[in-house]
Formats: sequence, C-alpha cells, structure tokens
Amino acid sequence: MSIVRDVGLAPAGRRKIEWAMNRMRVLSSLVSEMESEKPLAGISVGISLHLEAKTAALAISLERLGARVSITSSNPLSAQDDVAAALSQMIYRVYAWRGETDSEYEENHRRVLADGPHIIVDDGADLSVMAHSMGIAGRVFGATEETTTGVLRFRAMERDRALGFPVIAVNDAKSKHLYDNRFGSGQSVVDGVLRATNVQIGGKRVVVLGYGWVGKGVAERFRGLGARVIVVEVDPFKALEAYMDGYEVMGSMDAAKLGDIFVTCTGNIKVLTDQHFRVMKDGALLANAGHFDVEVDVKALRSMATSEDEVRPNVREFVMPDGRRLYLLGEGRLVNLVAADGHPIEVMDLSFATQLLSVLYLVRNRGRLERHVYTLPDELDEEIARRKLRIEGVGLDSLTEEQKRYLESWR
Amino acid sequence: MSIVRDVGLAPAGRRKIEWAMNRMRVLSSLVSEMESEKPLAGISVGISLHLEAKTAALAISLERLGARVSITSSNPLSAQDDVAAALSQMIYRVYAWRGETDSEYEENHRRVLADGPHIIVDDGADLSVMAHSMGIAGRVFGATEETTTGVLRFRAMERDRALGFPVIAVNDAKSKHLYDNRFGSGQSVVDGVLRATNVQIGGKRVVVLGYGWVGKGVAERFRGLGARVIVVEVDPFKALEAYMDGYEVMGSMDAAKLGDIFVTCTGNIKVLTDQHFRVMKDGALLANAGHFDVEVDVKALRSMATSEDEVRPNVREFVMPDGRRLYLLGEGRLVNLVAADGHPIEVMDLSFATQLLSVLYLVRNRGRLERHVYTLPDELDEEIARRKLRIEGVGLDSLTEEQKRYLESWR
Amino acid sequence: MSIVRDVGLAPAGRRKIEWAMNRMRVLSSLVSEMESEKPLAGISVGISLHLEAKTAALAISLERLGARVSITSSNPLSAQDDVAAALSQMIYRVYAWRGETDSEYEENHRRVLADGPHIIVDDGADLSVMAHSMGIAGRVFGATEETTTGVLRFRAMERDRALGFPVIAVNDAKSKHLYDNRFGSGQSVVDGVLRATNVQIGGKRVVVLGYGWVGKGVAERFRGLGARVIVVEVDPFKALEAYMDGYEVMGSMDAAKLGDIFVTCTGNIKVLTDQHFRVMKDGALLANAGHFDVEVDVKALRSMATSEDEVRPNVREFVMPDGRRLYLLGEGRLVNLVAADGHPIEVMDLSFATQLLSVLYLVRNRGRLERHVYTLPDELDEEIARRKLRIEGVGLDSLTEEQKRYLESWR
Amino acid sequence: MSIVRDVGLAPAGRRKIEWAMNRMRVLSSLVSEMESEKPLAGISVGISLHLEAKTAALAISLERLGARVSITSSNPLSAQDDVAAALSQMIYRVYAWRGETDSEYEENHRRVLADGPHIIVDDGADLSVMAHSMGIAGRVFGATEETTTGVLRFRAMERDRALGFPVIAVNDAKSKHLYDNRFGSGQSVVDGVLRATNVQIGGKRVVVLGYGWVGKGVAERFRGLGARVIVVEVDPFKALEAYMDGYEVMGSMDAAKLGDIFVTCTGNIKVLTDQHFRVMKDGALLANAGHFDVEVDVKALRSMATSEDEVRPNVREFVMPDGRRLYLLGEGRLVNLVAADGHPIEVMDLSFATQLLSVLYLVRNRGRLERHVYTLPDELDEEIARRKLRIEGVGLDSLTEEQKRYLESWR
Repeated sequence: MSIVRDVGLAPAGRRKIEWAMNRMRVLSSLVSEMESEKPLAGISVGISLHLEAKTAALAISLERLGARVSITSSNPLSAQDDVAAALSQMIYRVYAWRGETDSEYEENHRRVLADGPHIIVDDGADLSVMAHSMGIAGRVFGATEETTTGVLRFRAMERDRALGFPVIAVNDAKSKHLYDNRFGSGQSVVDGVLRATNVQIGGKRVVVLGYGWVGKGVAERFRGLGARVIVVEVDPFKALEAYMDGYEVMGSMDAAKLGDIFVTCTGNIKVLTDQHFRVMKDGALLANAGHFDVEVDVKALRSMATSEDEVRPNVREFVMPDGRRLYLLGEGRLVNLVAADGHPIEVMDLSFATQLLSVLYLVRNRGRLERHVYTLPDELDEEIARRKLRIEGVGLDSLTEEQKRYLESWR
Repeated sequence: MSIVRDVGLAPAGRRKIEWAMNRMRVLSSLVSEMESEKPLAGISVGISLHLEAKTAALAISLERLGARVSITSSNPLSAQDDVAAALSQMIYRVYAWRGETDSEYEENHRRVLADGPHIIVDDGADLSVMAHSMGIAGRVFGATEETTTGVLRFRAMERDRALGFPVIAVNDAKSKHLYDNRFGSGQSVVDGVLRATNVQIGGKRVVVLGYGWVGKGVAERFRGLGARVIVVEVDPFKALEAYMDGYEVMGSMDAAKLGDIFVTCTGNIKVLTDQHFRVMKDGALLANAGHFDVEVDVKALRSMATSEDEVRPNVREFVMPDGRRLYLLGEGRLVNLVAADGHPIEVMDLSFATQLLSVLYLVRNRGRLERHVYTLPDELDEEIARRKLRIEGVGLDSLTEEQKRYLESWR
Repeated sequence: MSIVRDVGLAPAGRRKIEWAMNRMRVLSSLVSEMESEKPLAGISVGISLHLEAKTAALAISLERLGARVSITSSNPLSAQDDVAAALSQMIYRVYAWRGETDSEYEENHRRVLADGPHIIVDDGADLSVMAHSMGIAGRVFGATEETTTGVLRFRAMERDRALGFPVIAVNDAKSKHLYDNRFGSGQSVVDGVLRATNVQIGGKRVVVLGYGWVGKGVAERFRGLGARVIVVEVDPFKALEAYMDGYEVMGSMDAAKLGDIFVTCTGNIKVLTDQHFRVMKDGALLANAGHFDVEVDVKALRSMATSEDEVRPNVREFVMPDGRRLYLLGEGRLVNLVAADGHPIEVMDLSFATQLLSVLYLVRNRGRLERHVYTLPDELDEEIARRKLRIEGVGLDSLTEEQKRYLESWR
Repeated sequence: MSIVRDVGLAPAGRRKIEWAMNRMRVLSSLVSEMESEKPLAGISVGISLHLEAKTAALAISLERLGARVSITSSNPLSAQDDVAAALSQMIYRVYAWRGETDSEYEENHRRVLADGPHIIVDDGADLSVMAHSMGIAGRVFGATEETTTGVLRFRAMERDRALGFPVIAVNDAKSKHLYDNRFGSGQSVVDGVLRATNVQIGGKRVVVLGYGWVGKGVAERFRGLGARVIVVEVDPFKALEAYMDGYEVMGSMDAAKLGDIFVTCTGNIKVLTDQHFRVMKDGALLANAGHFDVEVDVKALRSMATSEDEVRPNVREFVMPDGRRLYLLGEGRLVNLVAADGHPIEVMDLSFATQLLSVLYLVRNRGRLERHVYTLPDELDEEIARRKLRIEGVGLDSLTEEQKRYLESWR
C-alpha cells in the first residue's frame, strides 16, 4: 500500500500533474506511439526521483506502457505531498512525503526495493547502492541514473568492480545534460531564490561556486536578472572560460567577503565552510544547487551560530557570535526543488523522455549488456532532440551528399 | 476595529514583515533619524496600497514617526492575509483580505476614509477619487500617489479643475520611477509567471505589450532568461528604441499568432481582445503587469470560452470553441502581486522612502500648496538616491569647481 | 574654391559616399519627395560636421533641395581626405583635411562663414560662436546643432542673452538623441577601440566615465562583448541606475587602479587627470567618446611622461617615470571618428533626416522665430521615426478611440 | 631569400609586431624561461599560418628558442604586407604577400617545404598535404595543426592510413579551442563586418550558419551588439541548444529570406548557394568565418550576377538579374582576417603558446610517436591555462584531500 502524507490533497496534486503532462509533449508523443504495444508489460520499475508533478508524469507514462511502478523521493525535502497523494491513486505504489527524517527516507527506499524492481530509475544512486548493500542487485536488469553525481558514483563502482548490473547514464545523454543541467538549473535556481526571499537581484553580487553545466546556467540566469556574478572554480580551463565570459573569477575566500548570495554547484562536499562563514557579510544568503546537501557545511554553520530560527519558509537564520546573520535557503538542499517547483516542465520533458527510452533499452537488451555504465545509443538520443524540434516547429537543415563527401575527404 | 481574514495567521505575517523591514535599509535609516521628533504626531494617514510585507513596513514606519494609520489594499487580490493579520496588531486599523468582492473592496476604502485621514497614500487614485465623490476632499491636506496610472488620473482631475487637494506624484520622483517600474516590475513579473506556471522561459516567445519603463524592464528580464521577446507599441519612438535594442517589433495582431506568453504593460484598456484571442496558439499564457485588470479583456475571453477552470493556483483555463486553450494568470490582475510577492524588497525600499518624505513634505507645507500635482523637490529626491548609494557602499564622484564652471561656459 | 588634401583620392571617397547614401533610406526618401520643389533654392548653408561619408550625404541632399553648401570638419582629426576630395567635386565648397592644426581648423571655419551662410549646421557650436564673435550673426537665419555639448553652449548663450539667431537643438529631437547617442556611440566606440588595438574585450575591465546616453550605450556594447564594466558617475540617480543594471559603480580614483580600458563620455573637462594616471596599470588604454578633446587631460599626461611614441596608428604610448606605459587612442579625440568610421550609417540617417527637416523648418519660419533654442516640433520629429519604421517594415499599433478616451478620463 | 611585397613597409610592420608581442604575455613568459637552453637548436620549422602580427610573434619566439623558421601565409588574402616585410628582417625566410594568386599561393608553400622543415606548423593542412604529395613527408618529424578544418583532414588521412608523420591537433587542446574558436572568432568577425561596412548592428537580422564553437561565439557577440540572430544547423542537439539560448532557429531557405547579414561558420562547402541568393533581400551582406572560401558559393553568385563591382574595400557588389544587390565581404574568405586584424591578441597568445609547446613536444618525442593525430598532453595544456590565470591575477581554488576522496567514493 502507498504511504503518503494526506490523500485529501489529491485533487490539487492531480491538477499539477495534468498541467505538467499537457506540456510534456515529447514524453506524451512517445507514449502515444507505443501505448498499444505495452512494451513494458510484466516489468516492475522502482523509482527514486524528486517526487513532484513532472516525475509523476514519468511514472504514469511507464505504467501506460505496461510497467508496474513503485516510487519514492530522492531527497527528504523534495516530495510534494499533494502530488504524492494524487499519484498514489494513479500508479502501483508511492512511498514519500515532504520532510522525511533520514530513517524514513531510508525506509521508503527499502519499500521500493521490497516491491522487486526489474529496473531502477535512480537520482543520485541511493536506491541502487542500497540494492547492492542488501544483496539484491542480481535480481535487477539494470538501472538508469539521472544526475552527474549519481553517474560519478556508478563509475566509481564500475572502477571498483562493484557494479552488479548495467547502468544507463541518462545524465550523459545529450538530450539530458545539454539542457537539463544548464537551462533547467539555471532558471529554477533563480526561481527558488526569488520565492524564498523576494530580494532584488539587480546589483547583487552572486557567487557561483562551480562552473560546470549547472554553474554556467546559474551564472547566466543571475546575470540575466542584473546580478554582478563572481565565479569560483578549481579547474583552470573553466576558470578561464568564466573570465572570458565576462564574470569576476576569484578564490572562494576572496569571494566570501564580497557575496550577497552564494550558490554551490559543484557536486562536492564542504564547498562553503566555517572559514567562509567567518568572513561573510551580514545578511548573506546561502543556497545549494548540487544534488546532495553536503556543499554548504550546515553542521559547521550550526555549531558556529549563537541562535537559529526559520524567519520565512525555506529561509533559516543563523546568528554568528559577532552578530552577523547568515541565511540558509531550503536547508542547504537543492534550492530549486525545495523552494520552487524544480526544473521547468519542458526541460524535464526531455530528461524523462530520455529516461523512458533508457528503461525500454534496458528491457529490450536484457542479458546482452555487461555490468558497465553505458550511454544511450546516439540514434535514440538524437531521436529525442529531433522530436522536440518537430513539436516546437523549429526547422533543421540537413547535409547534402556533396557536403558529406567533403567532410570525409582530405585532399 | 481592524477587519482581516484570520488573526491566527499573524505569526507568519509578522515574520514576513520583519524580513522585509530588515532589508529596507533606506526607509529604516530615515525613521531612525527622525523617530525621536515624532514629526507626524497628530496626523492621521489613510493608505490604499498593495497590502503585503513591504507596505506593512511603510505603515509601521509612519506610526513610528507619530502618525495614526488606517490601511486597505489597492487591489482585491493583492492583500496577503497573514501580513494583514500581523499588521492589525501593530498599527491603528487594517481593513483588507485577499479576494475581496468589488463591493467589499469599495467598503474597505470607505472605512479608511471614515477614519478621517489628513494624508492619503494612494495607488491608482481610487481612495482619493472616492474622497472627492464623498465630498470630503476638503478635509484632506494632500495625497501621495504611487503609480503612473494614478498620476495620469490626478493630472486629468487637475486639468478638469476637479482636484480638491495637493498631490505629490511619488511615481514621478526619480528615486521611484527610475527603479520601481523598470527593475521592480521587470523582476517580479518574471517571478509571478514562474511561480504560476513552472514553464521554461528559454526559447519561449514572450510578447510584451507596451515599452514604457515597465515594459522595458519586463522585456529585459525575460530576455535575460533566454526568451525571444516581441514588443508591441503605439509610440513610434518607443517602437524604434525596442527595435534597436534587438527585439522583434510588430503589431499586436501579428504578435498574437506567435506568442507563447503575453504580458500587458500599457496602463490602457482592452490591449488584448477577442480579435487577438481568436488567433492565439493553443496553450498561450496571458498575464498583466499594468495597474488595473482592464488590459486583458477578460469579459470577452469569458464570453468566447466554452468552459473555464482553475487548473493551478493563479492559472485559469479558457477553452475556445475550436478547442484551443488560453490560460489567464492571476485573473488578469497584476501578476507580480497576485502570483508572487510583488516588487523586490530593495526597490520598494526606495519607493516607500519617497512616500515617507512625501508625506512629511505635505504635512510640513500644509496650507502652502495649491490644488496641483507636484513632484517631490529635487533635493529630497536626490537625498534618497545618495542614501541608498551610501548604504550599499557605492562610490560617487563629484564635479570640481573647474568642471562646474566649464559646464556653465559657452566660449 | 574648395581646399582638400588630394583630389586624386576622390574615386575612393565617392564609393564611400555612395555606399552610405544607399543605406540612408530615411534621408533619401525625404529628398526624393521634395526634390522637385527645391525648397532650399537661394539658401546658403554652412556646415561644420565630422566630414565623412554620411555627412557628405547630408551636404549632397541639401544641394538636391536647392541649397548652396559650404562645409568644414568639426574636429581637426575627423575629416576623411578621400571623402573630402570626392565631395569637393559634388557640392559648392569643401574646406577640410585630416590633421588640421588649430589655426587651420579655425581658418577653415572662417572660410565657411565667408561664404555667407543663411543657415549654419553646427556640431559643438564652434561655427556659430565664431559667427557671433565675428559680428555676422545678424545675417544668419538660424542654426541647427547636432550635439549635447553644443546645445549646452547655446543654452548658456541664450541665458546670457548673447544668442544672435534661433537655434534648433537637433540633438534634443527624439529621432536624434534616443538613437544617435546611445546606439551610435555604443557601437562605434567599440569599433574604434577594436580597430586601434586588436585587443580582446572579453574579460577586460572597461571603465566608462559618465552614464548619460553615450555612456549607457558604450557600457552596454562593451558588456555585450564580454567586458567587465565599471561605471563612474557624479549624478546619484544615474549611479544607482548603473548599479541596478548590474555594473560595478565606484569613484574614478578607485576605478583608475582597476581599468584596462577607459572611455570618457561626460562632455566635461579633466575627467581623467594626473592623479588617475599615477595609479593606472601598465598597459592601460585611454579613449574619449565626448565631443571635445578635453576629457582626458592630455597635457598632464604629456608632461608626466618620460617619452612618447606612436606605436600603432591612433595609439600613442606615454611612458611614465616608473616605467608604466599608458596608451592614448586617437589623440584623446572622439575615438569612434578618429579610429573608425564614426556612427553607423543607419543611425546617422535618422540624425541627418532630423537635420534636414530642421534646416527646412528654419527656412520656412524665417522671421517668425525668436533668438531662442528650440526643439523640432513633435510632428516632424515623429514623422522621421514613423518613416524609419515603415522602411524597415516594422509594425506599429495605434490607439483605438476608446483607448484614447480612457487615457483622458479619471473616474 | 625572403619574398615579400615591399620591404619599405617594414617600419610599420615592426610596430604592429611589437604591439602584439608586448601583449602576448603567456607566449613571452614561456620563451623567457627557456630562451637560454635553446631547446629548438638545429630544428627547422616551416609555418603556414595567417601572416599577421601575432603570427610573426610566434615565428620570432621559435627562433628565440633556437629554431630556423620559414613562413608563408595560409590564405591568399590574409598576409599583411607590412608585417611580412618586417618579419623578413627578423627571421630566416618569409614568402608571402596579400593577394597571392592560386599558383603563387602554391609556390610559396613549395618554397617553405624546399627549406626542409623538421616540423610543420599548419593551418588547414595545406602545407602538410603538399609535403605528402611531394613525397617528402618522411623527412618531417611531425606537424601541428591550428584549425578544426585541418584536424578533420588529418583524421581523414589517418583513417585512410595516408598520414606520413605524427600530428598534434593544437585545435583540440582546451587552451586553444575553448577560447580561440568561440571568443576569438566571436569578436573578430564582428570587427571585420564593422570595418568593411559601417552598418548598424542593433536591429539587424544576422543569420549564423553553424552553431559550433565559432558559430556560438559569432551569435553571442552579434547579439551583444543588439542584433536579432537566427541560427541554422544540421545537428539537432546544437539546434536545440541555440533555441534554448534564445535564438531564432530555422532552415537556411527560410533564413535566407529574412537575413540582413549572413555569416557561415560550418567548415563545409556550399552553405549559401544559388537557391539562397535567389530569395535574399536587396542589400544583404554575405560573410564567411570558416577556414576555406568554400562556404559561400562565390562561383554561383558570380554566374548569377549581371554585374559586379568592389564598392568599398572588402565589399564586392553582385547585382542580380532582378536588380537586387548582394554584397560579399572579403571575397568570401575569413572576414575577420581579410577585413580586420584576425583574432584578438590575447586569444592568439593562448593558441600560439599551445603551438610552441606542441612543437617542443614533437621535437622532444621524436621517434617515439606513431603516425597518428595526437592531442597535447593534459598537463601541458593545463599549464597554459594556469599561466594565463596567474598573469591576469585571477584566483583559482584547489580541491582539499577530503574533497578528492569524496569524488572518488561511491558509498
């Protein structure tokens, strides 16, 4: 049986899901074409993704293709209770609510695994790692992984020969990472900060830590709203790119003294630590756009603070011994999911179309794949981009035979 | 006695107000300097402004300077019930709730006037016009007006010799209109659309109707998020400016066929009408950033629709006879106030510091002003900008004597 | 007789003029419509403008309408010798060459006045001021003035009751100052810096001194090429606008230490002086976008330098006593005219269409105007903008009667 | 003996070279450190690169490290005669002038090969292909290749087992392609179009064909100057990225009807052909930013035209049978090199530092490399980026040991 906060919230959740599904036109068109074949009949899918409306649309789509779906949320704060309630009336199982404790979070993941998934749809690799540690990886046909962070973990497992089933790095598909990380995070992190704080962005100094795809998107969108953006990097090529892109680039200790708003986008731990907190300005806002809540060292912040208080929803004030106040947004978890609705619908449409094709690929190639981390074959990846362009009415040229030959020749 | 939705909401409202006041540093510094003198002792102020946290900060500031304040909301949908509840415990009178009917809206304005204000702080001129039609304008020392729309109304009254007291056009102060209309609306309209819809902006065609300060800000910020912006204008100079700014510029009927999102920013009526609705694309979103809910012809939309439904908070679906669905955001009222928290705090800090100095100016010059529309004297206006720069630590050069002489000379 | 550097250069100049005229479609369409009437028959026009191809097109246009035109250049370095040569074969008189000495510059202006102009077309007011000091102002019907700087001089003359004829402040026409100062200078100053130096703009710190229309345009375009822009201002409102626009804003002494490229845009003297030169970085580039060569204190720079050398065309190196090298572009004169081709053609098309209508207005209203500084009547100004939109195929809406009434009403 | 247009031009060329060398600080710092060791003593280097001031700096740098350098220009129009003249007095051999015929171009390449180079520095692979066809590839230790186009040719040779020596794909080094293609072409193509035409960019429709690194840079910079940019692509992922970046995206036939300015950035042939010319607007400008002059089908343009004329330097007018005029910039060759000074100095500093380290790597690893296309080892590539950051004073963070461990772990 599903476990959600309050089934009475289902009507509101249902509307959110319908709104999202209506605008996820790539996913919908794929489902429409294949629905009658039921290509996932007999397949059990276990999902750990941020449980909001767009994710619900993916779960429903998988069931439409014949699968039986169990789902939990990939972050203790990212489930939306109304969506979970509605979804619990629409698919096999939902185990999720906003504000899970660490042990509830773990228990819900365990419940999904107890439903015996053939396919795992993962976001950060927690569900798969748990399957391995419970010794049930052998029963799983394969997993798909949504995030950069999760793919890094799976690759480390592969390197350590600890991987028990094939994995499709959905994140590495072009239809996913070219758009989701940059355009999705870019817009939605801004959205999260605006909703949480109502502060003006124009004129503010925003410090973006990490200039990967997420950081690029976040820097771009904050600049688009008039911020003076500072980029912090450890990679010299990315630092130089940020510099030529017209951003200020400096070490994090220098940036710590200047920033009004900080956004961590690294996928690493302890990016903002006590040494930074000590020099920040009174009123500084701290947000995280990375997968896990490890980038801002909340434990250090808490231990330094003389008092702490939630001053607005998703805004927690920490008073420093010298009276300065630092504000942590969304508890240091993904600010775009905790304080807003996550990535925009159209971006998740592409990501989840990629998820759908990846799940189908794992099922169709059952037994033919090694215990490796794979990327989705190019032609499937490209099919998604082409479908999106068609739906948006965007024209695309094609190479003539003469042009193809020219590209092949060298004389 | 105050009349609000639910006093139990006061704790949440109080936090919102504190958050805003802490960040309204220009207003706060003015109050701190003058608080001990009580320059508004014995003065009754009646306010009609969008009743959210920043407005509450203004009301509280006026009482700190000695005034007795009654307040209502300048839009039936813009009052936030938690803020109204908290404020009702902090100032003389509050009469406001979200979702007032037209007659409740009018009744609440009447209640403010019944408290006998010496000074009216107005937003759209409704409170002042009502004072005139009730024949009590003679008792009022003067009014301040926040918006372009209201100032136009007051100037029309002046032209018709119908103005019963002096008015300070706060909107025309540089410290107000240079920042509030452009930067305030620019950011907050984007915020409202994001919250209401969760759609991706990158790649969308956004049609901005009106390229005044509000339209400029809205166009700029949507472009900053990756939109392809189309501007519609009636003024050839503004149309040409938009064109050179790199926007598409075209007539509204052409734009109607192309837009994904429409934002009216004109201050005029019937900017989007049945002829536009007839040709819009399925799924188009309609939002208004102008003061009154007259820019999108909602009546026409409703009469054309075969059905209508609220599909998400602040999103109303209208199904056209041919099956196309158009979505009206925030009921066609100011989308930044109805679907988000209104202008960013720092912008309202400047506007409300201007309001405060304008109220003081009216009180200090009681009996010395004509029944005209005035602007705030330059030196007061400039004081606000200089104070803001000081607070933000922004350096400013000054002219040398030699440079001043040079500017005066012509030989 | 015309006096130019080398008539042998005429063929190249003629091509430049034809290229420009072909693209000045607003000016051309006005001339086509009126050419047969010869509305300027019998009128002598004296021009002092930057003598390059677009200016030549104006001179030719005036002659096509019947005028007799004498022309010199409004800056000792801005005349292009090939254009002057070609023009000398196409209109009455040309007195100009690149690199005039101060006395040659004065002499050429005197020659234009000796031709007895009824109308003066001025750029910086030098020609008109000379006419006054020579005591021949009484013979002049009126003048038109192209620049902000010149208009300030004329207004000072009017204030001092020293103005001997009516002046049309062409600069103050919307069709001129909304586009010419911002879009014209913005692009062409960038062009001048690129041609003179070949340096990368991305990542550079560009200090823009003055945030009027010219400074705004320059800041915008350098940012558009990836520069990190710092704005210096004396006006608190403009400083605050620049701050919210996302620029760094600071005092000139702080900026002097940081800048890689400096551009003065103030219309004032001694904006960059010895105190700035003392702290600038080795390799800093100094450019001026203001009308006169007084903004960078070249005299001070020269007196501080231990040596000086032209290291590239339009780049002069000054070695400071401590070994730092500062580079002055275009001798501190308008960098867009000295090192590039001045404003883009389409912008000057609007400005010179305004000039043409202003000359016609002065002729048609001879004897009916006071010795004041006038702006072009709104309907003529608007005609230019409308014509430009028509030519570019840009759609424009118009107000309905109902909308006009709404804007007039206040109830 | 060197063969150049006119040695009398040497003084001007020498200044250009000095200006560039002074600002190529990465290259200079590498040379300074190694100059005393003469690591290239006894090595003969043959260069085919665009012969302007920055390239001269590379040639001089190689000689400072002990090499003997012969050089020609990699494009018949890209040599600057004054630079060639100066360089002929500073290094072993120069064979290049602006406006070489095809046979002169070939002959000059032959001359470089006749000097017996051990190392070839190539730009487009012409010199290396010629070495192969002349049967002297066996004498060459290896080559370095500057461009995407050349690398594609070398890879095709490798695939066909036709490659006679190892090649370092300099273009594929991060220090090269991340900056040179995007930031270098972006700025310099704009520069070339401005110099050639003096047209306003704000409001213009610029069609960018190809959205690789070059196309991205070109689109970005034109947008930065106010253009309305249309992107044409054949790759669905790039098309979708352009769309989300906020550009119009469409097929080339649709774009052909709309564009004011066209820039080809594909590396392919016949990108703009007779079918496009037939529908373009009167006055359209055609420019190429790709390596070879094959992207705009000039032959087709010429055969369609009823007349043709050079109307400005680097602007050739083709009159179509219906009277429309199309303008080809820089003869359809690289517009940034033909009509301007090529990439900005700072970008070429990085590219040529990469060239220098690549030449050294080939020499040091002589006999140890296969006949393959290699990329520069990461540590050398990274050294360049780090050195540049140090020189610009840009701060860089580094990972803590704890962070490194975290990135390795998966539990």
